[in-house]
Amino acid sequence: MNIAVAQSGGPTAAINSSLAGVIAEAMKISQVEHIYGAKNGIAGVMNDEFCDLRALVARPYGMVTLRQTPSSALGSCRIKLTEEDYPKIIANLVKRNIGAFFYIGGNDSMDTVSKLHDYVVSKGINIRFVGIPKTIDNDLPETDHTPGFGSAAKYLAATVKEIIADSNVYYVNSVTIIEVMGRDAGWLTASTSILRETCGGMPHLIYLPERPFDVQTFLKDVANLHESGIRAVIVAVSEGLKDADGEYVAADNQSGKADVFGHKYLAGLGKFLEAQVSDKLVCKVRSIELNVMQRCASHIASMTDLDEAAEVAAAGVRAAVTEGYSGVMMSIVRVSDAPYKVEYLPVDVKCVANHVRHFPAEWINTQGNGINEQARGYFMPLIQGEPNVLFEDGVPVHFKVDETDYMRDNGGD
Amino acid sequence: MNIAVAQSGGPTAAINSSLAGVIAEAMKISQVEHIYGAKNGIAGVMNDEFCDLRALVARPYGMVTLRQTPSSALGSCRIKLTEEDYPKIIANLVKRNIGAFFYIGGNDSMDTVSKLHDYVVSKGINIRFVGIPKTIDNDLPETDHTPGFGSAAKYLAATVKEIIADSNVYYVNSVTIIEVMGRDAGWLTASTSILRETCGGMPHLIYLPERPFDVQTFLKDVANLHESGIRAVIVAVSEGLKDADGEYVAADNQSGKADVFGHKYLAGLGKFLEAQVSDKLVCKVRSIELNVMQRCASHIASMTDLDEAAEVAAAGVRAAVTEGYSGVMMSIVRVSDAPYKVEYLPVDVKCVANHVRHFPAEWINTQGNGINEQARGYFMPLIQGEPNVLFEDGVPVHFKVDETDYMRDNGGD
Repeated sequence: MNIAVAQSGGPTAAINSSLAGVIAEAMKISQVEHIYGAKNGIAGVMNDEFCDLRALVARPYGMVTLRQTPSSALGSCRIKLTEEDYPKIIANLVKRNIGAFFYIGGNDSMDTVSKLHDYVVSKGINIRFVGIPKTIDNDLPETDHTPGFGSAAKYLAATVKEIIADSNVYYVNSVTIIEVMGRDAGWLTASTSILRETCGGMPHLIYLPERPFDVQTFLKDVANLHESGIRAVIVAVSEGLKDADGEYVAADNQSGKADVFGHKYLAGLGKFLEAQVSDKLVCKVRSIELNVMQRCASHIASMTDLDEAAEVAAAGVRAAVTEGYSGVMMSIVRVSDAPYKVEYLPVDVKCVANHVRHFPAEWINTQGNGINEQARGYFMPLIQGEPNVLFEDGVPVHFKVDETDYMRDNGGD
Repeated sequence: MNIAVAQSGGPTAAINSSLAGVIAEAMKISQVEHIYGAKNGIAGVMNDEFCDLRALVARPYGMVTLRQTPSSALGSCRIKLTEEDYPKIIANLVKRNIGAFFYIGGNDSMDTVSKLHDYVVSKGINIRFVGIPKTIDNDLPETDHTPGFGSAAKYLAATVKEIIADSNVYYVNSVTIIEVMGRDAGWLTASTSILRETCGGMPHLIYLPERPFDVQTFLKDVANLHESGIRAVIVAVSEGLKDADGEYVAADNQSGKADVFGHKYLAGLGKFLEAQVSDKLVCKVRSIELNVMQRCASHIASMTDLDEAAEVAAAGVRAAVTEGYSGVMMSIVRVSDAPYKVEYLPVDVKCVANHVRHFPAEWINTQGNGINEQARGYFMPLIQGEPNVLFEDGVPVHFKVDETDYMRDNGGD
């Protein structure tokens, strides 16, 4: 049979390692002939735009550079499928004799996997749909963690540590507010707590969307630290902080535009809090938005994350092609913390789609401004190991799929 | 004799490599006994706060971790000396039998070196003052480039390349505005042009403070690119862009606060331009401020930069201690581009202090929105090589000078 793979949702540093994992595992299975990559997620299947991944990775350093390239090599999409789209999608898969389709993505992609699986079952068509998890937000249920998260957390830890060093050179009272990605769940922001042991308790304050945020309490928290003799106060905040009424903090300062899934685009919480501090406290203040670098800084990816991203994808290929699974997402099951050990198992994709896994309440301190020590054992294994990045001309080499690599409407086999 | 060293101005990824260079070279010279580090720049000399650097680097992995630590290990200051400060400073140096003082810093620090040199000459006191250049802005005259710049440029090139990958996953017209540090000179922003050859002409638009910036022309430049079929337009802008009247663009949106040297703190140009695009053009737009990460991201420092930072500092120690130079800054002289070769020579610090070296007009294109190909040969050698960074617990290890490492008022020898 032939197989196809596509990528969706926001980029990560590990999403192409998952793509490489699908390709490498499929190449080991003799019954797999063509390995197709669809352009821009499910949109490429609708438009019949596929590339030949066996040929692409056969280029010099293909696999090596694919693994270290951030963002989706095959492009991405954020479209919400309607029932009218299903026949077109399935027809294009059938036309190319594709027996298994792998969708690397987050929550919305798992929804797509679920719907397409149900559709082919209802029509008696034998195409298997398997989801490969991916999101820096780490908010998918039914998996210990998600590929992409470990690399984002490692970038974040290294960068926050550097910002801490940068903040400590002057001898005036200051506040540095670091705005971290995380619309609904605070996993990434919480992961900065792993620095506290070696960085003298920094970040001093950590606020997550899982707890209501109050600006006055925040200002008091900062003032208390200055009074206690701490000069350079470091604060990590999730972009998605909400007040007691469940409204985004500083929502008025933000654009309020929503994407087709109804997600609001957030920006500017850090700047808002910076202005509050500047207005109410006597100290130097600055805010730093770590922005898309959190999801695309593959030059400091976590080796553990890259390896797992490839392995969970390879397990997905075996599950679909060899074992006949469909309508599942491959999950990471943590067997033990020390030594760190995981397994990969299929879970019903319906238990994943449209659910959010929040940061555990018991790992947040009573005051709601810090993370308990127990979270450290969870986070630490995920950021271990540094890939040996291939550089050329002083910068990391990236894998590139060109427009001309996509075949259009020229049939399958 | 004893020597002392201090660090000043904004942090960089290479400033501690210069400190390591001073220490390593001084340890080779038998006539140097104590190697003192002053806390928070010249302020530490005034307050008689010194540490024993021989002892500090003798700690496990001392030299290795000092070299890879961003930001000033000895702290920094931004104070403007007055004539009343000189006697106190010199008395503290004399008390500790310090025969040579090395100041690692930028423009303002060179002014300090110049003034203290003149003062001791006028008093007939034999203390040598030597400046070691440091600034990510690369805007010091009388040197081919400044330590710190190469690492900032390498971080920037790698990060902009990752942002480019991140910007190309969707199939809607978009603009990504990247705000780069550079108050008066556009060197750092211009250095992103080295990506153009391998990244399909990206960044498409580059604007420097050396040319007047006009918002309408900028919007037209972007619209023209979209019309020509380029989907994801990438723009790099210097934070210090000025209009035809010499006023900072979006000055009203910015705080307008000035430091003691009269520098205005800049922030928000990217957000301002983002709002302009959002208002006038029909496309997705986002802005990314690379903020202090440009100066402190030592995990992706340039090996060439770290090596030169140490070597120029070592040359400074030889110049002062062995050859008797004072009132000089050590400069980097480029002997050839290919093979890349430099020499280190002392220059009169008066030719450096309070002058700004702008990006060459002949390297900016006619339209003022791009950089000519000739600049590539200048930039490329500076970002070559990757240090083998020592990690622990998933993050780079940093060297730390504690409060208790400083001796106070306990005499010299």
